[in-house]
Amino acid sequence: YAKEVGIINYGTTEVDESLIKSADIVIFGLYPSALISWIEEYSHLFKSGTIITDVTGVKSSIVYKIQSLLPSTVEYISAHPMAGKEVSGVKNSSDSIFNDANYIVVPTEKNSNDAIELCKNLGEVLGFKNVTVLSPEKHDKMIGFLSQLTHCIAVSLMCANGDENLVKYTGDSFRDLTRIATINEEMWSELFLLNRDVLLGEMESFKAEFDKMYQALQKGDREEIKGMMRLSTKRRKLFNKK
Amino acid sequence: YAKEVGIINYGTTEVDESLIKSADIVIFGLYPSALISWIEEYSHLFKSGTIITDVTGVKSSIVYKIQSLLPSTVEYISAHPMAGKEVSGVKNSSDSIFNDANYIVVPTEKNSNDAIELCKNLGEVLGFKNVTVLSPEKHDKMIGFLSQLTHCIAVSLMCANGDENLVKYTGDSFRDLTRIATINEEMWSELFLLNRDVLLGEMESFKAEFDKMYQALQKGDREEIKGMMRLSTKRRKLFNKK
Repeated sequence: YAKEVGIINYGTTEVDESLIKSADIVIFGLYPSALISWIEEYSHLFKSGTIITDVTGVKSSIVYKIQSLLPSTVEYISAHPMAGKEVSGVKNSSDSIFNDANYIVVPTEKNSNDAIELCKNLGEVLGFKNVTVLSPEKHDKMIGFLSQLTHCIAVSLMCANGDENLVKYTGDSFRDLTRIATINEEMWSELFLLNRDVLLGEMESFKAEFDKMYQALQKGDREEIKGMMRLSTKRRKLFNKK
Repeated sequence: YAKEVGIINYGTTEVDESLIKSADIVIFGLYPSALISWIEEYSHLFKSGTIITDVTGVKSSIVYKIQSLLPSTVEYISAHPMAGKEVSGVKNSSDSIFNDANYIVVPTEKNSNDAIELCKNLGEVLGFKNVTVLSPEKHDKMIGFLSQLTHCIAVSLMCANGDENLVKYTGDSFRDLTRIATINEEMWSELFLLNRDVLLGEMESFKAEFDKMYQALQKGDREEIKGMMRLSTKRRKLFNKK
């Protein structure tokens, strides 16, 4: 399909040795465990000087491992394009998905400045609005809150009520909040488990605030409820798109 | 402003006796407690045969009370347009906000069929996509889950993390989920408290599912996590806009 409609010049779903050997830059779009397996099996095929990068959603659990598996002639600089859809596959691809999005380069101490600059440049060429740099640990902490916790919440919310009539009454706030409850369970269960300790901590932080709201409501403590709403309104303003 | 730009033909922010007396239909857009106070003070001003309706977000705690306060010559048929924004005021108004939205008529046993039909007709004239009918109790149960619980979640999530750098890294899922965390604390704290028992029950249902996810993650039970994700994906499909 991608070849037919001209999205790519050439492609194959097989491991093509000559293609791998000819690459200056390789961008991996594999699940974390599949990426590690691939590197274990095929990393000897890269030519010397190849830069490899990825789009994987967790970092600490894979980046150090992959860097240790690669030959010294190949550099792996990790990155995370913070853009996605609740559907997958090339038929759902869009050439504007990066326009308003953040691109995070995730280097370790092993990375060269040249590779970091090349990866930042890649984010700019792809049209991302912001290109930033984070360590694997800071990346995983941030993603645990912004992405994984939000998916936990949306999934739990959908599991909490099976009334099929709800759709007749819903407003957009419920739709917006649960858009990401349509979820690829193979990928996301892997991402959750590879960032387990961070995500459990973020779930606890959220639960503490949710319990505070519950108790304030139970006690009829309107000032406490209003205080939380004022804080959330103030903080959310920072996230408005400029 | 509304007069200047031609949104209304005539309007005042004062209680205008002759305007009230001339009205065939009155649509109230007041907070619940303010609506009750207004009816207590001014309901004698309506002419005989006036139909009044509203847009209030909770029903059981106000509908029976208001019906009991009105003279027998005035009929109150309650309704809830399920559409809104995280900003308020006439300057943020939009004539397309109802196009894709649900309108719920909320009659009691005291209402006449004529008033119910008139109110349904009003929803159609205003351009709502779906017009449905619910009892006050069923309305409040539904709204407790679809609207109030979602606002509790969004507010708690924003309260759980004060890192001002997060915006540099966020994707759209966090933005979508927290859009409603920009919240009018006067109105929403009143809505929460007027539907307290229902909302506490919905918060408990959500928390039970969220805790299930937490425990599955803690135990590393990938099948349990995937099962929840499959259920949420299946249920969320019903909410896709057609």
